[in-house]
Amino acid sequence: MNVDGIPYRSIMLDDDGWGVRVIDQTVLPHRFEIARLETVGDAAGAIRDMVVRGAPLIGATAAYGIALAMRRDSSDRALDEATTHLAATRPTAVNLQWALGRARRAVEPLPSSERAGAAYAFAASLCEDDVALNRSIGDHGLALLCELVPDTDGRPLNLLTHCNAGWLATVDWGTATAPMYRAHDEGHQIHVWVDETRPRLQGAALTAWELGQHGVPHTVVPDGAAAHLMRRGEVDAVIVGTDRTTATGDVANKIGTYPLALAAADNGIPFYAAVPSPSIDWEIENGSQIPIEERSADEVTRVRGVADGDELRFVRITPRETRALNYAFDVTPARLVTGLITERGVCAPSKAALANLFRASR
Amino acid sequence: MNVDGIPYRSIMLDDDGWGVRVIDQTVLPHRFEIARLETVGDAAGAIRDMVVRGAPLIGATAAYGIALAMRRDSSDRALDEATTHLAATRPTAVNLQWALGRARRAVEPLPSSERAGAAYAFAASLCEDDVALNRSIGDHGLALLCELVPDTDGRPLNLLTHCNAGWLATVDWGTATAPMYRAHDEGHQIHVWVDETRPRLQGAALTAWELGQHGVPHTVVPDGAAAHLMRRGEVDAVIVGTDRTTATGDVANKIGTYPLALAAADNGIPFYAAVPSPSIDWEIENGSQIPIEERSADEVTRVRGVADGDELRFVRITPRETRALNYAFDVTPARLVTGLITERGVCAPSKAALANLFRASR
Repeated sequence: MNVDGIPYRSIMLDDDGWGVRVIDQTVLPHRFEIARLETVGDAAGAIRDMVVRGAPLIGATAAYGIALAMRRDSSDRALDEATTHLAATRPTAVNLQWALGRARRAVEPLPSSERAGAAYAFAASLCEDDVALNRSIGDHGLALLCELVPDTDGRPLNLLTHCNAGWLATVDWGTATAPMYRAHDEGHQIHVWVDETRPRLQGAALTAWELGQHGVPHTVVPDGAAAHLMRRGEVDAVIVGTDRTTATGDVANKIGTYPLALAAADNGIPFYAAVPSPSIDWEIENGSQIPIEERSADEVTRVRGVADGDELRFVRITPRETRALNYAFDVTPARLVTGLITERGVCAPSKAALANLFRASR
Repeated sequence: MNVDGIPYRSIMLDDDGWGVRVIDQTVLPHRFEIARLETVGDAAGAIRDMVVRGAPLIGATAAYGIALAMRRDSSDRALDEATTHLAATRPTAVNLQWALGRARRAVEPLPSSERAGAAYAFAASLCEDDVALNRSIGDHGLALLCELVPDTDGRPLNLLTHCNAGWLATVDWGTATAPMYRAHDEGHQIHVWVDETRPRLQGAALTAWELGQHGVPHTVVPDGAAAHLMRRGEVDAVIVGTDRTTATGDVANKIGTYPLALAAADNGIPFYAAVPSPSIDWEIENGSQIPIEERSADEVTRVRGVADGDELRFVRITPRETRALNYAFDVTPARLVTGLITERGVCAPSKAALANLFRASR
């Protein structure tokens, strides 16, 4: 999507044809900086430190990580090490394992001399696929939103989202935001409530930034305020992303998603998860089996922003000795989900509906 | 309760017998500073700017505000002006109107020369009453908690609270925290999950500080994480405060309380509100009639804390132009509330139960 009127993707091959350029998401929205990845270590570090984040973009970065590794050393051992290194970065997004598995299968059978080229080609095609998937989620989501528009009596359609399942979390379009960008681009009046999404504030920092850059009207609210907005009738639908959705439709997503779904259910508001198929874990039938990443307590006790003079600073918000706990994700049970917006269409959050939609490809 | 081992109250008469000392809650937990109020304007400003906050302490400060006004000018006009000035500071806490009404009735019938003395005496007695009420809430809440202890199998009893309904929000003991302090002081093993409570972070800043000063084990979590903790079985009970509870048991409290109650209900966890009777609005039967304060968007877009070198700083967390919305409270419907812990005992959140408990006094 656009940054200052110029179309960007979140991950790109550099002009030299081998370095990988990513937008540094740890300094947004205060700085727009591009980081260059040259080794598998750079790629793993970028995922671990959340220079890149979002399940689809984690997958794409991991695929390029394999390519960077193969460029330097295309031995079996290097492939093993790269896969292990990248797989250990973040546990919840299933796209990471999915991308690594596919990258490995694309290069492993080849002679050493062809591996690097094949790995780059695979990473590029994975990125193109991601853009197409999200664009397709946008089409299906747009149709859903159009069904809601007649009930808004001429006022903007009020959508609510959590965290950043935007184009920054993918290669382009985003998952939860794809229907929003499509609706906005088609001239529908929409307004997006953006949960700030503590502790890392991906909503306040990333979603607000990308919606603003693209000109989509939006308002940031504290996470705890979403339920009150719903009760006041100020939310027409909730759309969130996912880091892993089970074969039965339980949705793991950024911490704070589950209480959103409870509030939507209590107020009769449709709650959708945008789920590209690489985020579906076909092996798991119960959301409680999804590993939930626990991140550093520092992310809770210290907040990053810009102080006067525009310098990036961390400030501590708790007493010095205070203990904090930082689960990064929660699981929304399928019973609270109205529908899954996939690249193949919208379906109920159930094993039968998901299997029906994706039968041919599995 | 204790600060550095020394017992404090949140509001005290100064040594000169007329100035009013309050703990400046805008700089906690990073600085422990006492502010001195000398005029009704000082008192109104302290309430408006949240130097003091919490429904019971707002009431106590307003009562002292009337005393400070009467000391300077004890005319009818001054009494009118002081009441109007103080009443306009914050709309949601019903204790403010309650305290002002009582203070006014205590001084209005008196000759001008006796008004200041009577107003100070009234404010002092209101503070003593508040301490006794909260102590009593602590007793009744302690009995409740003792019923839960046998189910914990020797591990600490895990309580969860939101915002600060602690001693800093009252004159002493707190409302939601009174049962916690009583349980801790009696030697029960408890652990408190403290919702950080965006946007003003009263949990991370105030509740964590006061529990820490008193030695009560606790852990700060982002607001959105509470539901996940409940789902993991890590919460035995929720206790929150209230700014106004209707005669039918709908509980207005800090924004983010309603989704907590939804999560508690979804996980079969008891959800209690600690409700001193001055926080009950007997005139209102439906929580939707409670006025909900909307505060400055700056409280959402800027976060206060300490940077390196221990200087207090604000940092902006959103893009510069981003709009934010800041409702300060929400309403938890009675159907989601397990019980109200009042100074007269624990009752169901219903008109009949509340009326039965407080019949004699109304």
